[in-house]
Amino acid sequence: MIKVAIMGYGTVGSGVYEVIRTNEKSIDKKVGQKLRIKYVLDLREFPDDPVMEVLTHDFEDIINDEEVRIVAEVMGGLHPAYEFTKRCLETGKSVCTSNKELVAEYGAELIQIAKDHQVNYLFEASVGGGIPIIRPLNSSLTADVILEVSGILNGTTNYMLTKMDREGLEYLDVLKEAQDKGYAELHPEADVEGWDACRKIAILTSLASGNQVDYRDIYTEGITKITSEDFLYAKKLNRSVKLLAISRKVGDTYCAMVSPALVHREHPLYVVNDVFNAVFVKGNMLGNSMFYGSGAGKLPTASAVAGDMVDAARHLGKIITLFWDPEKLELAPVEQMNRRFFIRVKSDAEPEKLFGDGERIHAGISGEIGFITPVMTEAEYAEKAKDAQIISMIRVEG
Amino acid sequence: MIKVAIMGYGTVGSGVYEVIRTNEKSIDKKVGQKLRIKYVLDLREFPDDPVMEVLTHDFEDIINDEEVRIVAEVMGGLHPAYEFTKRCLETGKSVCTSNKELVAEYGAELIQIAKDHQVNYLFEASVGGGIPIIRPLNSSLTADVILEVSGILNGTTNYMLTKMDREGLEYLDVLKEAQDKGYAELHPEADVEGWDACRKIAILTSLASGNQVDYRDIYTEGITKITSEDFLYAKKLNRSVKLLAISRKVGDTYCAMVSPALVHREHPLYVVNDVFNAVFVKGNMLGNSMFYGSGAGKLPTASAVAGDMVDAARHLGKIITLFWDPEKLELAPVEQMNRRFFIRVKSDAEPEKLFGDGERIHAGISGEIGFITPVMTEAEYAEKAKDAQIISMIRVEG
Repeated sequence: MIKVAIMGYGTVGSGVYEVIRTNEKSIDKKVGQKLRIKYVLDLREFPDDPVMEVLTHDFEDIINDEEVRIVAEVMGGLHPAYEFTKRCLETGKSVCTSNKELVAEYGAELIQIAKDHQVNYLFEASVGGGIPIIRPLNSSLTADVILEVSGILNGTTNYMLTKMDREGLEYLDVLKEAQDKGYAELHPEADVEGWDACRKIAILTSLASGNQVDYRDIYTEGITKITSEDFLYAKKLNRSVKLLAISRKVGDTYCAMVSPALVHREHPLYVVNDVFNAVFVKGNMLGNSMFYGSGAGKLPTASAVAGDMVDAARHLGKIITLFWDPEKLELAPVEQMNRRFFIRVKSDAEPEKLFGDGERIHAGISGEIGFITPVMTEAEYAEKAKDAQIISMIRVEG
Repeated sequence: MIKVAIMGYGTVGSGVYEVIRTNEKSIDKKVGQKLRIKYVLDLREFPDDPVMEVLTHDFEDIINDEEVRIVAEVMGGLHPAYEFTKRCLETGKSVCTSNKELVAEYGAELIQIAKDHQVNYLFEASVGGGIPIIRPLNSSLTADVILEVSGILNGTTNYMLTKMDREGLEYLDVLKEAQDKGYAELHPEADVEGWDACRKIAILTSLASGNQVDYRDIYTEGITKITSEDFLYAKKLNRSVKLLAISRKVGDTYCAMVSPALVHREHPLYVVNDVFNAVFVKGNMLGNSMFYGSGAGKLPTASAVAGDMVDAARHLGKIITLFWDPEKLELAPVEQMNRRFFIRVKSDAEPEKLFGDGERIHAGISGEIGFITPVMTEAEYAEKAKDAQIISMIRVEG
């Protein structure tokens, strides 16, 4: 029998508890022996919840119990998650996590500590919730050079943008509704400013390149300035506005950014709506592939954590190879990224003079027109845009 | 240095050669040492092709060379692929394959032989070409009970149906065009009769259940009877016709079938067009997820074989756990499968009398109407349909 512990009994933690209890029989079969929860760590009490049988308030109970071989870290935040994870790994316990902040910040270091102690640090749930993407990147697409990994990596903003697209609502109205429904937090910055997507694309770029990417180096722009007018233009263009996290190979490194983008109806990411997430991967041999699923939510995320626990249980004493060296990857400057730009300008403006031949779009909004520039770098765009009195700009994908 | 061999220098075999040579540097990094091709086995000669340096006509060269630790079996067909694979495994060589016929027929046995000899039999490329689906099913979605695994698993028929949908062409015309373009074979039965998709859904069902599924038990219907009129109705219904392979959990077993189906625009599989494939997986915790990519083609399939070779190289002497016992799974009778049915009948028919309240569809075809039945089992439908003078029937998905 393998004993495990769950640190944190919030949304994901209670989900992990539920997954392991509900699917006990099939999980035991996959592990090859029984897998049982010995501790759940949380500072709170949960009267009348069966979790009370295994609840502890003291991390030392877990760390001092040699029977516990695998720990789910689903507390979130950097501290004390970092210290707890490190101590678990150092005492020979594998750790499985959904904590993207921690993975983005300390991933390479924790993988190394795990390796040094013949245990595993697994984090499938940290990107894309229930979508298997870490493992395919790490063990399936290994014969390919990854040319691009992009995606819709945040469920909250995708829900909001889908709502704006379908119902013509304004940003603040959908934010309020998302908050009422519990899809967005009271302080929604981590989602709507793109910080969450930024950490996730940092993790994916680290795995694609094999080196540590600092998420602080990634240009990140949220959805707070997107308006219902933008969607009128998008419709005219057979496109929708999505918050995209993009990472593309440039020479020996990658160029990464998070920003809203106009995605065409024929792009595989166009149909990814509501709280769904998707990761698009382009390999130099494989071509295009996409992984789609529930990007957030209690049970999908918990399922990914529990799947990692099954894998850790199958690999007791064996290291699952992960390519993520602590050496830092210097990202290519985002200024070099090439694309078209959609801008809104006054109706008497002549954007062609500044940007060259492009496409004018009329969405029936008085006093202004839309314009799609030719392909240019971010740097060129920024230079030309200075004099263009731009009402708003959204990048064009594909 | 790890020496490998490739058996078969056809489309996929030459692709594997190309992937390993082109991505040599990144593959070596992932393996942790050099991985080099020592033999390519083919009966033919390839003058002026650099492969001549490593070409052999004699399988014994490979089997007798202890240096060769990993072999790609990309010959196709059952014999001698089966005998060659078995001998490789028995002499301690891991085998990676794209041969779905062989995997569907002898998968469980070959996995067992591999295990007995501390080597691996890997077959990511056998389903969905370059789409990683075997490994996610086997190592990521392990905390879930798989409720459904379905998909568009055959690129040739999907190309043909997409063409019929977009251009209003007839079956025989698109078949001819697909043959001219090399997408369909001169004897296209394996694709158009659904046999290829049948073997693939048998493999996926084996992995979802952990037991051996006999593909002969799976009800299989091809696309040869689909007409341009069917697509007129499909359009009216915001649907398209796809060749779907479906496997659903029923009690302790699964119910599987391959048939054309009307897929709604909002279903994730609707946007899977041309030669692309996709596998849809529903877990009891995970919910819906989908894996999308190039389902066939030289390089995507070769990339999956080469990815397996990298994994085999990383696991020399270690067994990668696969859940696929030789014990046979008795599938649930397809007669129990529940769904709606789309039928075409004469315009004076009253399908409501036989099938109950449903939906009538007029597609502007004189002398007939379309009708969608309420949900019923295949058995009920077959019974009622006897007296209904049905022009044609297509199953309705979702």
